[in-house]
Amino acid sequence: MAPFARVTVVGLGAMGGSLARALAGEGRSVTGWSPDAAERRRALEAGVVRRAPDTLAEAVRESDLVVLAAPLGATCDLVADRALRSPGCVLTDVASLKVPVRDAVRRAGLSARWAGSHPMAGTEASGFEASRTDLYRDARVWLVAEPEAGDLGDRLHSFWSGLGARPAFIDAEEHDRLMARVSHLPQLASNALARVLADAGVSPSSLGPGGREVTRLAGSNPAIWRDILAHAGPDLGSALRALAVEAETLARLVDEGDTAALEDRMRHTRSWRAQS
Amino acid sequence: MAPFARVTVVGLGAMGGSLARALAGEGRSVTGWSPDAAERRRALEAGVVRRAPDTLAEAVRESDLVVLAAPLGATCDLVADRALRSPGCVLTDVASLKVPVRDAVRRAGLSARWAGSHPMAGTEASGFEASRTDLYRDARVWLVAEPEAGDLGDRLHSFWSGLGARPAFIDAEEHDRLMARVSHLPQLASNALARVLADAGVSPSSLGPGGREVTRLAGSNPAIWRDILAHAGPDLGSALRALAVEAETLARLVDEGDTAALEDRMRHTRSWRAQS
Repeated sequence: MAPFARVTVVGLGAMGGSLARALAGEGRSVTGWSPDAAERRRALEAGVVRRAPDTLAEAVRESDLVVLAAPLGATCDLVADRALRSPGCVLTDVASLKVPVRDAVRRAGLSARWAGSHPMAGTEASGFEASRTDLYRDARVWLVAEPEAGDLGDRLHSFWSGLGARPAFIDAEEHDRLMARVSHLPQLASNALARVLADAGVSPSSLGPGGREVTRLAGSNPAIWRDILAHAGPDLGSALRALAVEAETLARLVDEGDTAALEDRMRHTRSWRAQS
Repeated sequence: MAPFARVTVVGLGAMGGSLARALAGEGRSVTGWSPDAAERRRALEAGVVRRAPDTLAEAVRESDLVVLAAPLGATCDLVADRALRSPGCVLTDVASLKVPVRDAVRRAGLSARWAGSHPMAGTEASGFEASRTDLYRDARVWLVAEPEAGDLGDRLHSFWSGLGARPAFIDAEEHDRLMARVSHLPQLASNALARVLADAGVSPSSLGPGGREVTRLAGSNPAIWRDILAHAGPDLGSALRALAVEAETLARLVDEGDTAALEDRMRHTRSWRAQS
């Protein structure tokens, strides 16, 4: 039997809405909640959630699993919410950093009833309109479980596997260090490139497919990223500095016309990219 | 009637192969040539070209239009090839810089019989295997025509429109300055990011969809780019330096925890990206 018969999804944006869609697609009864009444109504009308009560307390009542699908800061705040302290309710979240959430969980004394999830899936679009049934299919989902949580991590592993995702356990600190490089750095690299192009008066419509692709993330939702960047560790700053050094080096090689060195560097990254 | 009844495509890699496929898809008789006999054979076997003679001279004989679909350096060399001097033959090319090709055309005394094309389409994969019928559909194709070329530019405009592409005229110098920003800068930004990740020991398989997307161009063919970078003007170096400055600024803001400034910068690039 699938773990967690009754699931409540808190937050009905692109992440929460997609999770509700995937669960509804399996015929499961999903309860949804959002602080935005219009979003609750849209999810109900779309048949994605069966119930969407007005209050968080009502939404999590008699739930086997509550999934917090809110931006990072809101997730940390939700963890401290009294509505989530009812004993029957176990918790996960989908925030993209795990140390801040784990620390909030510890402060709230909920370590025995929480394990964190981070699905590496997403879209630069946001809101319920951007949700889709297959967002998590084949996505890596990082799982962080405290020793006090017993088998909750394993049950969440089955939960995500059941949705076609690829869950894997990781240490919270290691996860956040990895994300600085594989997620936050590419995001800000895309923003940096977009800024240079915008400052040069280049219109996005004059980009070719490659340029459009590299700048697509620059369209991501700043409100989501504000929270993530507020909790960024020193790894992100040093990765950005390494990017600046490499861009400077490439500028020098281009100016010097050192095409052999440029080709060498391109071969190096091409072989790296070909690993899978 | 479609302009250029008999077309010869010189170079049967991703660009030339795709052009031959698109023309063949319209029922046109295409002659192909490649210095690589195996590539000629593959294009013949795939039914993409009707003829693929051994020599360039034979391939361009009785052709109404010869399209040079070779890397930039090879394109400049081909322009000087005696085989292309037969009077009936008009020329275009698909190289991604136009000043070097135009200058080679001037040196060869062919300005009356050439107009340059640059389709902003491509793939990080290369070779005939990477060719596809719809590569040019909806792609911007920049056209550069010398006054001596008469109506050749207009005829090429119709040619590309007929294949579903979006041709537009541009001055050669302006084109190359634009490309430094919209094409070469995104390419090298992707390489720079990939290098930082590779140096940090990050495996490409741990990237999420966004990170995979921003580093995809890092898999581009270095042999193609060597030529382009050899002809890069000063604009590319300064654009790379601007990228380095912006990456440094972001590093500082991240280290200082200045999330308001970071969010501001993200809003700015998000609005830019939303223009179309």
